[in-house]
Amino acid sequence: MDDTTHRTGRFPRRSLLAVGALGAAVPAISAVALPQTPASAGLAVVKKVTIYAEALPGGLYGYGLEPGKATVPGPVLEIYEGDTLEITLVNTTDKRLSIHAHGVDYSTDSDGSPLHASYNEPGQTRTYQWRSREMSTAPGRRFMPGSAGYWHYHDHAMGTDHGTGGVAKGLYGALIVRRRGDVLPDKQFTVVFHDMTINNKTAPNTPMFEANLGQRVEWLAIGHGNLFHTFHLHAHRWVDNRTGMLESVSDPSPTIDNKDLNPGSSFGFQVIAGEGVGPGAWMYHCHVQSHSDGGMSGIFLVRNADGGMPPGAEEAIERFRGHAHTTAHQGVHQ
Amino acid sequence: MDDTTHRTGRFPRRSLLAVGALGAAVPAISAVALPQTPASAGLAVVKKVTIYAEALPGGLYGYGLEPGKATVPGPVLEIYEGDTLEITLVNTTDKRLSIHAHGVDYSTDSDGSPLHASYNEPGQTRTYQWRSREMSTAPGRRFMPGSAGYWHYHDHAMGTDHGTGGVAKGLYGALIVRRRGDVLPDKQFTVVFHDMTINNKTAPNTPMFEANLGQRVEWLAIGHGNLFHTFHLHAHRWVDNRTGMLESVSDPSPTIDNKDLNPGSSFGFQVIAGEGVGPGAWMYHCHVQSHSDGGMSGIFLVRNADGGMPPGAEEAIERFRGHAHTTAHQGVHQ
Amino acid sequence: MDDTTHRTGRFPRRSLLAVGALGAAVPAISAVALPQTPASAGLAVVKKVTIYAEALPGGLYGYGLEPGKATVPGPVLEIYEGDTLEITLVNTTDKRLSIHAHGVDYSTDSDGSPLHASYNEPGQTRTYQWRSREMSTAPGRRFMPGSAGYWHYHDHAMGTDHGTGGVAKGLYGALIVRRRGDVLPDKQFTVVFHDMTINNKTAPNTPMFEANLGQRVEWLAIGHGNLFHTFHLHAHRWVDNRTGMLESVSDPSPTIDNKDLNPGSSFGFQVIAGEGVGPGAWMYHCHVQSHSDGGMSGIFLVRNADGGMPPGAEEAIERFRGHAHTTAHQGVHQ
Repeated sequence: MDDTTHRTGRFPRRSLLAVGALGAAVPAISAVALPQTPASAGLAVVKKVTIYAEALPGGLYGYGLEPGKATVPGPVLEIYEGDTLEITLVNTTDKRLSIHAHGVDYSTDSDGSPLHASYNEPGQTRTYQWRSREMSTAPGRRFMPGSAGYWHYHDHAMGTDHGTGGVAKGLYGALIVRRRGDVLPDKQFTVVFHDMTINNKTAPNTPMFEANLGQRVEWLAIGHGNLFHTFHLHAHRWVDNRTGMLESVSDPSPTIDNKDLNPGSSFGFQVIAGEGVGPGAWMYHCHVQSHSDGGMSGIFLVRNADGGMPPGAEEAIERFRGHAHTTAHQGVHQ
Repeated sequence: MDDTTHRTGRFPRRSLLAVGALGAAVPAISAVALPQTPASAGLAVVKKVTIYAEALPGGLYGYGLEPGKATVPGPVLEIYEGDTLEITLVNTTDKRLSIHAHGVDYSTDSDGSPLHASYNEPGQTRTYQWRSREMSTAPGRRFMPGSAGYWHYHDHAMGTDHGTGGVAKGLYGALIVRRRGDVLPDKQFTVVFHDMTINNKTAPNTPMFEANLGQRVEWLAIGHGNLFHTFHLHAHRWVDNRTGMLESVSDPSPTIDNKDLNPGSSFGFQVIAGEGVGPGAWMYHCHVQSHSDGGMSGIFLVRNADGGMPPGAEEAIERFRGHAHTTAHQGVHQ
Repeated sequence: MDDTTHRTGRFPRRSLLAVGALGAAVPAISAVALPQTPASAGLAVVKKVTIYAEALPGGLYGYGLEPGKATVPGPVLEIYEGDTLEITLVNTTDKRLSIHAHGVDYSTDSDGSPLHASYNEPGQTRTYQWRSREMSTAPGRRFMPGSAGYWHYHDHAMGTDHGTGGVAKGLYGALIVRRRGDVLPDKQFTVVFHDMTINNKTAPNTPMFEANLGQRVEWLAIGHGNLFHTFHLHAHRWVDNRTGMLESVSDPSPTIDNKDLNPGSSFGFQVIAGEGVGPGAWMYHCHVQSHSDGGMSGIFLVRNADGGMPPGAEEAIERFRGHAHTTAHQGVHQ
């Protein structure tokens, strides 16, 4: 990956484009906050990345950063407000497809939709440009929002004009635009609630996300498809605002551990793995009962601080793998 | 429309009741912020408006400000916190119907529900009073909320005690209660996600909203009916708070471009048309895939600053009109 | 109920664990705000409560604070940030069941899930421990959230590994963790939107909640089951933040009167009964039209300040009881 190809300001800097495939949690860039520096100071850069859209076993499709390495979901793409991201999308498949982003600025030819003939024909390579910016002043001492957010990207051209075929088959991933000063995590997990699946899988084959006790873990939650969902994480919680943390002692946002995750929406938050509760094989699942029973459930394995397996975790994982999720153990008749 | 009929304070002022029918975007009142003046300074007024409920072609019903001019959705009603709005509802139909408001104060006889016998019989004229107020102090230096918000109104009496028949047939519209100092837009669009329709229409007959590059556009989004939806706007975003803008540099609210829009809920926000992305025929749609494929999609046409047609927009609109939305172009078999 | 069994700090204090069964609105503890005192000052306590899970008529199950007194929903459990709650759960039924909490800290053996063998066998008594904490510092002058919130608890073991059978049959209730300084209400109502029911009942048998004009009423809203819902309250509104009130004059949160209430989610807010609108038999209902028509509707009876019945309320209640909710009165054909 070519990580710093153009300088748009006076000072070059190391790329902060972090990329990780889901399922394999990525090592963090570094868990320190950058100083608050405006983009106007010259830090904004143009980053270039090549993404390969590929057919995968089981009728799936994925995005990847190298040929033959596509995953579902695709890699986490990450920039800072002010940066521009140029994606060279290589379509290795025999289907029409594209890449459409939420949250960033793009011209119509990078919209990724058939409406603008903005897609790759089978076998075609095409470049999409996503721009970002910081907040700008608005009347009354307000600000028009910048691009910072926990966003996502997905196909918008396979199957129908809205990319329903591509989304259904796995062409989606997380996009983060950070504000300068945001806290960086140790690990990142992408969780896509999509019809009756998590990342196009059902229990017990859903991803088992792993972290060590005390690590700062960033969850990237994305909704897709045709059904409504609620994302629930056991024994951890977050603030329902931009960062998932209280931004000041007087931040009025509610703290939650269950949140609607409906098609096209996304959110992110950071937790300290096992904080206040200890290590263990904690569940994450859709809280719609028929969905969790139907397989929308997985394990967040918080290991001991030294990486060892905590007591009881093996047994819990064994139970998770062994149980058919739809079994009614008690014979309750409704 | 009789726009200032009673003074409740010392200073009369020009009515700020803006009224616009959907589909025809209304010219703005004026895009300047009012000075911060409490209602107690005497600005609160009683406004009177006559609304006609009428049968429309295709089995629809609508609210309008003049006889024979009913629309789906009805006119945007707009007041400032502290104002009172008196609606004389003329029922020109042969059905029982009413007008029920969200967000404002009303006595039981203006509730609009059969529970309180608060409705118009066929052919009947009846007056409803909606009051509003500013925030008031609460314990701990908190405040009980005022009435400011992006609200809506709808029938609550046709078909069932909950107005299901009237809502299904188009008896709904937007109601804005502004806080003094709020920024006024250049244009307003009302978008009602209602079952599988937008404003009771499906693509390609959904409204095409138009603005010139750089205009401040206010979107009023309302959910109705029996299905869940997510509203998505291409190439533009907003803050998920009261105004859609960051209310200060430390406002912790997230920035979004996709939001749940479920029955009875509403929200509003302002964007600068084409900011950072340029003019073009941008899509807005429900992001539930089967809903967008089924016709819950429309065009936000951002013209050039001088009102001219931007390159590619005609072609995009032609594609939008020509395509059957449910056509699977690539033969993806799920 | 044993209300103060251990001191964890220097100063014992009266328990603030408030407990109320739904349907019977509970008298408030006292409607005064506590001074802002950190838990580190020694106020955090360990509270113990025994809860009985019992079979109820009609195939339901409930939680209760005394034998033979189980209700649907169960009692409101209420602590302050820093407190620990130890629940001795007595399973008087012949089914496997548990108690699982949202929002608080627990070790795996108090998770309440079969994944951790954390449940009561039929006839078994078992203790669960829920801990809570205040916010803690995070990088960049941020804070990791404390436990304060409008949470809930429910079975996680009956029927399936996710407690689908227990939740479906009534094993759920509200859990409040207050921040020191929070405003205490005069009354509390718990409303659980669960499949096509409110508190497992349909109109006209849904709870009628009662308060006198001017009382501070706390609503605890919880979603469960398999369907999506929107909670709407007539003639009252609240702020969509942690407390339901504006936490300062510059709190950017929106004011709403309709909110998504989906499975596993919960929120709470306080209103002044009848403020600005007067007494009356106000409706609360799911705003999904087929749900309100199907019986997800109830009455919030705001009596006169002296407890007397306001004009028109008897008639409204009579209409509510007499009408079949699905009757189409006007013969609207869709």
